[in-house]
Amino acid sequence: MDGSMWLHHPRTERMKEILAAHDFGPLKMIHCSSTFSATPNFLQNNIRVKHDLDSLGALGDLGWYCVGAILWAVDYQLPDTVTALPSLHLNQSGVILACAAAFHWTDHDMIATFHCSFLSNVSMDLSVHGTNASLQVKDLAIPYQESSATFDFTCGANFADLHIGWSRKPEEVVVQTDLPQEALMIEEFSRIVGNVKNSNCRPDSKWPEVTRKTQMMVDAVKSSIELGFTPVDL
Amino acid sequence: MDGSMWLHHPRTERMKEILAAHDFGPLKMIHCSSTFSATPNFLQNNIRVKHDLDSLGALGDLGWYCVGAILWAVDYQLPDTVTALPSLHLNQSGVILACAAAFHWTDHDMIATFHCSFLSNVSMDLSVHGTNASLQVKDLAIPYQESSATFDFTCGANFADLHIGWSRKPEEVVVQTDLPQEALMIEEFSRIVGNVKNSNCRPDSKWPEVTRKTQMMVDAVKSSIELGFTPVDL
Repeated sequence: MDGSMWLHHPRTERMKEILAAHDFGPLKMIHCSSTFSATPNFLQNNIRVKHDLDSLGALGDLGWYCVGAILWAVDYQLPDTVTALPSLHLNQSGVILACAAAFHWTDHDMIATFHCSFLSNVSMDLSVHGTNASLQVKDLAIPYQESSATFDFTCGANFADLHIGWSRKPEEVVVQTDLPQEALMIEEFSRIVGNVKNSNCRPDSKWPEVTRKTQMMVDAVKSSIELGFTPVDL
Repeated sequence: MDGSMWLHHPRTERMKEILAAHDFGPLKMIHCSSTFSATPNFLQNNIRVKHDLDSLGALGDLGWYCVGAILWAVDYQLPDTVTALPSLHLNQSGVILACAAAFHWTDHDMIATFHCSFLSNVSMDLSVHGTNASLQVKDLAIPYQESSATFDFTCGANFADLHIGWSRKPEEVVVQTDLPQEALMIEEFSRIVGNVKNSNCRPDSKWPEVTRKTQMMVDAVKSSIELGFTPVDL
């Protein structure tokens, strides 16, 4: 478990049910952003901008959420290629302050893009488009408020006759939570520890796999940057 | 004038006022999508999928809106590079059914991505992120309904103390229109023709420039595809 708290919010489970439903159709496009405008103090002193402390910078901090969200949406099936986009901001120590990348799944004819940055207004967008439906959330990693969270969902919309509108608007789905996502994450961690301690189980393999695949993708983005924004095969 | 009706909706003017305002901050990231799931009949017979009729396919039809929206957001300043993303669907005649691309403005450290497709659920998203604000619309080219349209706007949001939420949620801005955007487009066209006819003016240079720059970008995406998804300098 890597501390990605949003994975433990009940909204995430509700979104997954919708993505997995037959009428969503095969996924075609995912876009994710994770950004905030860091303060001058952050950009000078935070460990996330120090090459000997957290050398992956915005990619390791904010890009982690994007990569994790994209992998979550595709049930952790790794893409065939990872290509960093020719847009990169480094600080004087060479640590990434902003970058972007595209992932491509050849067999499924699917693409995902993401942008992470310490230099742009706060955003946490995730848009997932399938052949028949779309799901969109704008406060993925940290919901606007603790007690409930929303996302927009559209299925089977078409243009109205004469293209004067759409046949239906997106539906706002509201998901309540009794406990904050951070507390739910600790509950899950405790459950796994409890299983090991009390039932002699081996640690659940789910979370290490999630973390390892996310790290592989982050590393591939870094490699593509170092190779001059060329595609990296996975 | 190229028939991009959304440019004539009063919502577009309102969004431009917000983007141009000082407190939006320099633009950093734009993402746009324009997609719909075409019927089997469309994919077989429509002129947009015929290489001897409309050989740019989804790029010339739907991608045109994306490219136009991105250029509109940046006041028609062309990017330095155009890079098609390694995600492309062609029909048997080699006409584009789906593609994606990234644009990069080196001096401004800004990136834009878009995805257009005849093979994905209907979407018309435009997200524009600056250093201090964000603007998001989900029904750009054809609003959900004729008489009014909305967009979301967030300025100066931060995380709440202890990261238990955001300091403010996006505001939904509603813009009414007495006439549909298509009628407003014809009004504008008539005004220009009237100026030529009645006042001996030369045709307004604004719309030919908008169209020419959009076509240049669409052509650059096509070139990048043909060059194996390598960057094309403008």
